[in-house]
Amino acid sequence: MKARVYISLKNGVLDPQGKAISHSLHGLGFDSVIDVRQGKTIELDLKETDREKASEEVERMCQQLLANTVIENYSIELVD
Amino acid sequence: MKARVYISLKNGVLDPQGKAISHSLHGLGFDSVIDVRQGKTIELDLKETDREKASEEVERMCQQLLANTVIENYSIELVD
Repeated sequence: MKARVYISLKNGVLDPQGKAISHSLHGLGFDSVIDVRQGKTIELDLKETDREKASEEVERMCQQLLANTVIENYSIELVD
Repeated sequence: MKARVYISLKNGVLDPQGKAISHSLHGLGFDSVIDVRQGKTIELDLKETDREKASEEVERMCQQLLANTVIENYSIELVD
C-alpha cells in the first residue's frame, strides 16, 4: 500500500522559501502572483495491506518524525 | 484563484532525503516501510480568475522556475 503525506506550514508561520519563490516569479514577469507557500510531500511505500492499520501507522510516523506539529500541518492520503 | 504544484523526482533519480527518512523510520521501529520518496508542494495564490489562463501561466512558471524538468516531474491542480 502507498501513502502520501502532505506537510505544509501553519498559517502565520513565516515561509522564507515561499517568499523567495514569489520574488523570483515577479522578477520573471509573473505579476499575477499574490502569495506563495512551499510545503513537502512524502510518498511512502508500505508492506502493510490493511487500510486502517496503514493509516494509523502513517499517523504515528507523522507525529513522531515526519511533521513538526508545532509549526506544520499534515494530511495523509492512502493510495491503492 | 489558487493553484497547487506537486513536484517529485523522476523514477531512477537518487533521493537521499527519502533514504534518510526511510532509515530514520526503520530506526523508530516502523518496519513496514519499503521505500520513501520526498517531493515538494508549491501553493500559489493568483490574481488571475480565468481557469484556462491560470493553468497556462502556472505551466510556464513550472517550466521556467519551479521544476527542474531534467530530474523532476510536476503536476498542477487548480483550486477554487
